[in-house]
Amino acid sequence: MNVIELIKKKRDRSSLTKEEIFFLIHNYTKGKIPDYQFSAFLMAAFLNGMNSEETTAITEAMLYSGKIIDLSNIDGIKVDKHSTGGVGDKTSLILAPIVAAAGVKVPMISGRGLGHSGGTLDKLESIFGFRTDLNLTQYRAAIKKNGAVLIGQTKSIAPADKLIYALRDVTATVESIPLITGSIMSKKLAEGIDGLVLDVKTGSGAFMREFKDAKKLADSLIRTAKSFDKKVIGIITDMNQPLGNYIGNWLEVVESVKALQGEDIKDLMKVTHILSGAMIYLGKKAGSIEEGVEISKQMISSGKAFDKFIDIVKTQNGDTSILLDLNKYPKSKYSEKITASKTGYLESVNNYEIGMAALELGAGRLTKEDKIDPKAGIIFHTKIGDKVKKGEVIAELFTDKRSKVDDVKKRISGSLVFSKNSVTKPRLIKKIIT
Amino acid sequence: MNVIELIKKKRDRSSLTKEEIFFLIHNYTKGKIPDYQFSAFLMAAFLNGMNSEETTAITEAMLYSGKIIDLSNIDGIKVDKHSTGGVGDKTSLILAPIVAAAGVKVPMISGRGLGHSGGTLDKLESIFGFRTDLNLTQYRAAIKKNGAVLIGQTKSIAPADKLIYALRDVTATVESIPLITGSIMSKKLAEGIDGLVLDVKTGSGAFMREFKDAKKLADSLIRTAKSFDKKVIGIITDMNQPLGNYIGNWLEVVESVKALQGEDIKDLMKVTHILSGAMIYLGKKAGSIEEGVEISKQMISSGKAFDKFIDIVKTQNGDTSILLDLNKYPKSKYSEKITASKTGYLESVNNYEIGMAALELGAGRLTKEDKIDPKAGIIFHTKIGDKVKKGEVIAELFTDKRSKVDDVKKRISGSLVFSKNSVTKPRLIKKIIT
Repeated sequence: MNVIELIKKKRDRSSLTKEEIFFLIHNYTKGKIPDYQFSAFLMAAFLNGMNSEETTAITEAMLYSGKIIDLSNIDGIKVDKHSTGGVGDKTSLILAPIVAAAGVKVPMISGRGLGHSGGTLDKLESIFGFRTDLNLTQYRAAIKKNGAVLIGQTKSIAPADKLIYALRDVTATVESIPLITGSIMSKKLAEGIDGLVLDVKTGSGAFMREFKDAKKLADSLIRTAKSFDKKVIGIITDMNQPLGNYIGNWLEVVESVKALQGEDIKDLMKVTHILSGAMIYLGKKAGSIEEGVEISKQMISSGKAFDKFIDIVKTQNGDTSILLDLNKYPKSKYSEKITASKTGYLESVNNYEIGMAALELGAGRLTKEDKIDPKAGIIFHTKIGDKVKKGEVIAELFTDKRSKVDDVKKRISGSLVFSKNSVTKPRLIKKIIT
Repeated sequence: MNVIELIKKKRDRSSLTKEEIFFLIHNYTKGKIPDYQFSAFLMAAFLNGMNSEETTAITEAMLYSGKIIDLSNIDGIKVDKHSTGGVGDKTSLILAPIVAAAGVKVPMISGRGLGHSGGTLDKLESIFGFRTDLNLTQYRAAIKKNGAVLIGQTKSIAPADKLIYALRDVTATVESIPLITGSIMSKKLAEGIDGLVLDVKTGSGAFMREFKDAKKLADSLIRTAKSFDKKVIGIITDMNQPLGNYIGNWLEVVESVKALQGEDIKDLMKVTHILSGAMIYLGKKAGSIEEGVEISKQMISSGKAFDKFIDIVKTQNGDTSILLDLNKYPKSKYSEKITASKTGYLESVNNYEIGMAALELGAGRLTKEDKIDPKAGIIFHTKIGDKVKKGEVIAELFTDKRSKVDDVKKRISGSLVFSKNSVTKPRLIKKIIT
């Protein structure tokens, strides 16, 4: 096989065979195909697409570039959740203890935030001492003990994805459904799971802004998961405004703790319960998603989910005292309120801008080397459709960077559109695909 | 300007501005854009195309990556010819002396053969001592003295093209009309010419096999040349069989000398005269292409073209004694005749295969490091439409490589199709575009 001939084949809109895709991925990962040839292939694949067989093959090739974790000696069904990312999305922190408390195993391997979108690992690490870098023995032991674990990607899992993603990032080949599918599914399949719930976000704060693109991605992910004999449910949810009210790493832990303690944060809990309900259903602890949702609510009201969260944090070396007394956590040096300049209804939010505003305050990274300030972020008081009066507080920002305050205040205000007329609230759960 | 944004723009089918294209070419040439980003851009440009403004901009950016030769202190109009390459195409060797003898200056910078297609430099260098590496002072002096010079590309001419072509070659992005246009025209415009005649080949031995593609390339080249205020004529000619009868470096010199001495090699001289006629017309030594063709024929019949050829070879340090007595040249160790297995008409030739067969005998290179055997090649006696009798010699091969003889014999035979019925000869001059 000749790499130039394979690039040419994809360039000329032919489909590649499984063997050809394995040849490309294997040799690129081994350093035998140079970056400049692989990036030409990626652009050809981006522009000419890949069919479902090619997508399955690229997923499999990336999966087999590394280790597949064997969890067969741990009893019970293992189910994970994956979200395509958004602003204020802290559902993993809430649903992992819920689902584990309901008796389903949750072996969760998460990522870091990049750009406007937050990452579960960064949120967890805002808890002093919390370790996301467990080795495989510790990972297995933690699942056995608590039924759930939340760690970061290890080097042995899908190394091809790490290399290919880094190249896609600098060659404008990120937003390709087959390539995104390969990247997500190769990592998730390596976890040793039996089932997977996918939260595919759509809206101004999501990577897939349009519903039709989110639907296509969900379909591709589901088709690929099924081709590996995994149980899978895809749920398309709204990301046109922050999920919940808190954005920023420690702030999102705070909101998660409140949620686990029973506070009914409507949009956040609606999304969390449908996801955990689906996981409980896939884990065969409920006969339907609806029944799973009921069990999920019971795990909160009984206090079992919060107890489970504390257990998980303890096992992963986190300081639980700050979770039991949230006020013990350090405060940001500066805070500033954003108020409504006139009375009206919140019509729309440029949610990408809200995510980027939080990043500027210190909550995220523009490059992988940037350091995160766990305290920094935004509390957002207003939801689309809410009526606000002139002078009422819409949002509050927290940062140690004095110089950013005025700019970020403007950036947040500029991302909001108000209407004199009443506005319908967006539907939160847009589609469930089984 | 950000390179990822520019790749994205071309990926998403937008047009790039002149400034954006200059940014890309300039920074790639300076080594500030890595190969892997530029190859992703090349693939996006290959698949999504470039409009005429972008094609002009990429040509200009590549042109200004190096030196533009100033020939303004040399009197007269300077006209060159460029061919897109083929099998047995030795027209440059014949028309340069013809056109110079007619009083038009010919500052010709040529390339080497690669793959199935021969190169003017390799043919000239089969003449002992012939130097194609003149510096700019020698180049100017030779034009002043003889009215024509034939050299190779210097490092100072369009260095961007050299870098970009090397990358295209290994990333399956060669066959793109805007990229081919930029590559050809940047080098030709750097020569300091006033006019250019383009010989765009089409058929089984050409890079553009289909007429419609050759027409598109000709149109793109002409449009670009005109945007730089150059006089230009494009001629689309047939390359479905070797041009003339001799293929191989010294063999093509032999056929060129015969042609310059007045032998009427029909197809070769028809193409040569139309090209030189067009050059003489652009050089204002004739009122029309037709009149130019008449003058071209006079330059042959008067002996002036042959005398001019001898002068050029002398000035460029070549051994003219072997041109005046062609039999003095060394002979290949092995030769072999290919005969017709039955009586019939030659219907078609896979001319790419004929070019590759000559290469295998030693006449060309598969990699840039391969050494050429100037003696090696093929004499092809039969033209499409000719009737051959069983046992009649169709072609003769010459090589020093004993091991290749049988394979190449088969390869040549396998590339010929014979018919029992008479066959129409292909039209040689397919279109003249002014």
